[in-house]
Amino acid sequence: MTVQEIAADFAALCKAGNFAEAGEKYWSADIVSVEPGAPPGGDSASHGIDAVRAKGVWWYDNHEVHGIDVQGPYINGDQFIMRFKMDVTMKASGTRMQMEEDALYTVEDGKIVEERFFFGG
Amino acid sequence: MTVQEIAADFAALCKAGNFAEAGEKYWSADIVSVEPGAPPGGDSASHGIDAVRAKGVWWYDNHEVHGIDVQGPYINGDQFIMRFKMDVTMKASGTRMQMEEDALYTVEDGKIVEERFFFGG
Repeated sequence: MTVQEIAADFAALCKAGNFAEAGEKYWSADIVSVEPGAPPGGDSASHGIDAVRAKGVWWYDNHEVHGIDVQGPYINGDQFIMRFKMDVTMKASGTRMQMEEDALYTVEDGKIVEERFFFGG
Repeated sequence: MTVQEIAADFAALCKAGNFAEAGEKYWSADIVSVEPGAPPGGDSASHGIDAVRAKGVWWYDNHEVHGIDVQGPYINGDQFIMRFKMDVTMKASGTRMQMEEDALYTVEDGKIVEERFFFGG
């Protein structure tokens, strides 16, 4: 599959709400997932598919999702960008908020080897 | 200035329509500008501020701009992403079209050393 085909399929899965399926289909075993920040002493990068899966489980355990708007893909070479606009409630605080982030994906040999998140909005 | 401050100011200038001013203020002399594609035999990368200025002049000479919607910045570390939604007419063909692209900027020492464009929509 070309990067264009992978990006289109990944985006279609996300737009259908199948985020975990998109990840399982395209994450490399050695994927690195990089957040914009980390707590003091923490690491903004998660290494390997097990760590990335665990991050996803943590996120869904700690957020009630009211809706996620998905935009993209935007493509250059072996990279593509998606935008996620999320309406979520943080379970710990009960705070409902609208979050926006871009994700920059890097593809090698048909798999996503890096996902890097950018916060904004 | 922090990357956050640079990104915010760059975005504010673009949102005010001052794209050239934003570039002149933050482009490194050695900036590399990377398009998603290039014609056969061409180079998708422009090297140096003079080449990037020339690309901008070419673009404005060849497009009639009806409007540009600017979104962002989205930030991670020393990089930020902007989105540009453009309503333009290509002067050569008279074709009016809506184009969308994301731009990924990399900052070093207070200047943008790389801009990388992603096409989508």
